[in-house]
Amino acid sequence: MEQCSSLGKTALLIAMAEGELIDTYAASARDKGFAVTYGKVGSMDIQKIIAAIETAARREGLVDERYRSQHALYHAILDALQGLGRGQIQLGNVLRTVGLRFSIVIGPRTLKDTDDLWLAVGMYGMIGAPIKGHEHEVCGLGINHL
Amino acid sequence: MEQCSSLGKTALLIAMAEGELIDTYAASARDKGFAVTYGKVGSMDIQKIIAAIETAARREGLVDERYRSQHALYHAILDALQGLGRGQIQLGNVLRTVGLRFSIVIGPRTLKDTDDLWLAVGMYGMIGAPIKGHEHEVCGLGINHL
Amino acid sequence: MEQCSSLGKTALLIAMAEGELIDTYAASARDKGFAVTYGKVGSMDIQKIIAAIETAARREGLVDERYRSQHALYHAILDALQGLGRGQIQLGNVLRTVGLRFSIVIGPRTLKDTDDLWLAVGMYGMIGAPIKGHEHEVCGLGINHL
Amino acid sequence: MEQCSSLGKTALLIAMAEGELIDTYAASARDKGFAVTYGKVGSMDIQKIIAAIETAARREGLVDERYRSQHALYHAILDALQGLGRGQIQLGNVLRTVGLRFSIVIGPRTLKDTDDLWLAVGMYGMIGAPIKGHEHEVCGLGINHL
Amino acid sequence: MEQCSSLGKTALLIAMAEGELIDTYAASARDKGFAVTYGKVGSMDIQKIIAAIETAARREGLVDERYRSQHALYHAILDALQGLGRGQIQLGNVLRTVGLRFSIVIGPRTLKDTDDLWLAVGMYGMIGAPIKGHEHEVCGLGINHL
Amino acid sequence: MEQCSSLGKTALLIAMAEGELIDTYAASARDKGFAVTYGKVGSMDIQKIIAAIETAARREGLVDERYRSQHALYHAILDALQGLGRGQIQLGNVLRTVGLRFSIVIGPRTLKDTDDLWLAVGMYGMIGAPIKGHEHEVCGLGINHL
Repeated sequence: MEQCSSLGKTALLIAMAEGELIDTYAASARDKGFAVTYGKVGSMDIQKIIAAIETAARREGLVDERYRSQHALYHAILDALQGLGRGQIQLGNVLRTVGLRFSIVIGPRTLKDTDDLWLAVGMYGMIGAPIKGHEHEVCGLGINHL
Repeated sequence: MEQCSSLGKTALLIAMAEGELIDTYAASARDKGFAVTYGKVGSMDIQKIIAAIETAARREGLVDERYRSQHALYHAILDALQGLGRGQIQLGNVLRTVGLRFSIVIGPRTLKDTDDLWLAVGMYGMIGAPIKGHEHEVCGLGINHL
Repeated sequence: MEQCSSLGKTALLIAMAEGELIDTYAASARDKGFAVTYGKVGSMDIQKIIAAIETAARREGLVDERYRSQHALYHAILDALQGLGRGQIQLGNVLRTVGLRFSIVIGPRTLKDTDDLWLAVGMYGMIGAPIKGHEHEVCGLGINHL
Repeated sequence: MEQCSSLGKTALLIAMAEGELIDTYAASARDKGFAVTYGKVGSMDIQKIIAAIETAARREGLVDERYRSQHALYHAILDALQGLGRGQIQLGNVLRTVGLRFSIVIGPRTLKDTDDLWLAVGMYGMIGAPIKGHEHEVCGLGINHL
Repeated sequence: MEQCSSLGKTALLIAMAEGELIDTYAASARDKGFAVTYGKVGSMDIQKIIAAIETAARREGLVDERYRSQHALYHAILDALQGLGRGQIQLGNVLRTVGLRFSIVIGPRTLKDTDDLWLAVGMYGMIGAPIKGHEHEVCGLGINHL
Repeated sequence: MEQCSSLGKTALLIAMAEGELIDTYAASARDKGFAVTYGKVGSMDIQKIIAAIETAARREGLVDERYRSQHALYHAILDALQGLGRGQIQLGNVLRTVGLRFSIVIGPRTLKDTDDLWLAVGMYGMIGAPIKGHEHEVCGLGINHL
């Protein structure tokens, strides 16, 4: 994580981290100037996943109340969900459930390229049937200009 | 990477690693019993990306000449490409180009759950317009039973 | 609107019209020989939008009780919804809501090309998060042979 | 059916058979070494269709309790549903209902090519509006390695 | 085939028939009043498949030179291709090739329901990698009002 | 056009205008403070349509050389293309051709809501088979934050 200087990889590494590493990674990213928040959500409803990420972003001040920042976040979430759903953005409707950790990171695309602000949403978790153990890993990354 | 005990995260971390870390991560994964290969490819043609990954898997013996193993690999690649393309599996047709590092990892879903073999394809890189610097990060993960 | 002689543009202009212009445009289209109806609907449910348009068409006699005319209408609606949803035909499931004005127009494709009957569905409105002001414009046009 | 020696056609012919022919076809397929089950389901919910097929497969022992066989079945079902939904895997959300007969067949891809086990899901039925007679035929076939 | 009285099943059974059965099935369907043609095509290009089916339909007089009949055929072909491609209507771009037999059948939806003309396109064949034997069965059915 | 005070409707009306009305509408929109350009393009290649719109936007100074403005434009174009392609963003691959007039408009979402800059891409034209007269109208609208 120390060498990680790009927005998307930062978001993915935080979403994939476990235990104490999550805070360590988030702190390391903040030290480099990225704004960071993260959380977890499990659901069969896509809209609950979207709502959990939007709520985390608002609560931590990563997006403000203006529509343009929420529009940027919403479409980064939808993009990340494409990696999750791989062909359709549906869960319960197609009898799937998901348990995710997510991250939202705001900053330049890379530390060398600091002229603009971008937003990344990282997702990592397990997707599968609503039967214990019948699941495999899944990830998603969405990036949008702020 | 030391603590990483799951197939998909192993594939993603290798695809996202840089420089010497790539070999280190791959060696660590092999020590745990995963079969691993990786490579890089840049193209505006989806079929070249698929071919590069299929070739790497065959050359390293991760898939054999039987159709069933190639079918498993093909659909893991397509799934990972959904994260890459976020809505359509197209590149040059929609004026996009991609530079990727990819990994193929074979093993149990997790080190605790060793009854079956699965296959993961991880992709990480840059997607964008065919103009230098007009690109952002992208990732994909596809997992299939072998 | 006076110069407008094609089916799809007629449908779009009526769906986009405001206030008295709606009736004026519809009357002008009827004078040229088009059958026209229009209405409005707001919902987070795709099926309510489909039902509102189907009901308006039946009530005004633009489709009859035979399946073939309803099949033509249904697929014109689905096509228009692709412009609305831009990638997935979902609203509430992905935490979006929509407020629409729609039109249904039946006639030849253009006034010079009167050998066959076609059907157009136009949609225009606002799509967004279920938060006041967090929305932008959206439109859709579906055309099918009758 | 006597000459039919391939997995997918076997699945389709059983799904399309009527009356006594269903049992006759299933018996003929079993004589050739295929494992076969079949059933029917009608719904506006995709998840009920998936559940009905998964339940039939488990009850008849065509898949076991291991995730890998259920993963193979799930994705064969999703593939067959693409033929059914032709563009989106949705029913009630887009005001459609379906009445289906389905089959699940396990065996080699063809009787000459017996090295591997594959799984086919066939679907055949009527799709349409929730109005009597407003429906037309639809079919789907999904094939996956076991 | 003797008992088959519906448009879509007729199209599928002809597309799935082999050897002399093809002509027998087509003759049986024509005896019942259906207009029928069929053919075969192999390609990595979706547009060649579409062109082959459109050419067969025109050559046999199943569609005339008016746009409305060609529009009906085109969308029935696209619908059938959704069953073939299962998620994207692409072949060579995603390194797939297909060998198909297809049928086009025109008539009422069923022999009891003769008020309207509909059109069915059936497809059956093998899809796979451009490597001998690395392929499995695939089918598609598209139905549209004429 | 005089009463039109919103970004998307402005873009659509300019794309749909004919003859002298195009310049009149564009001038009216510029008077209200919108930045406007427009053009036409016909092709069987999606990438040529994207390139034509990107070139027009750059030549007229509506986007600058920074990636973020080009990213906003690119995704507004893709969104508008969803209305055009209604289910897949493909043209020649599925034997379709298109003749379009397009517009790019930059400004606030509405004249009352001037805090942020947004970008709209409007498209209107004919889509069809590569046969004269075998085509119908199509439109698309994509809106993104700048």
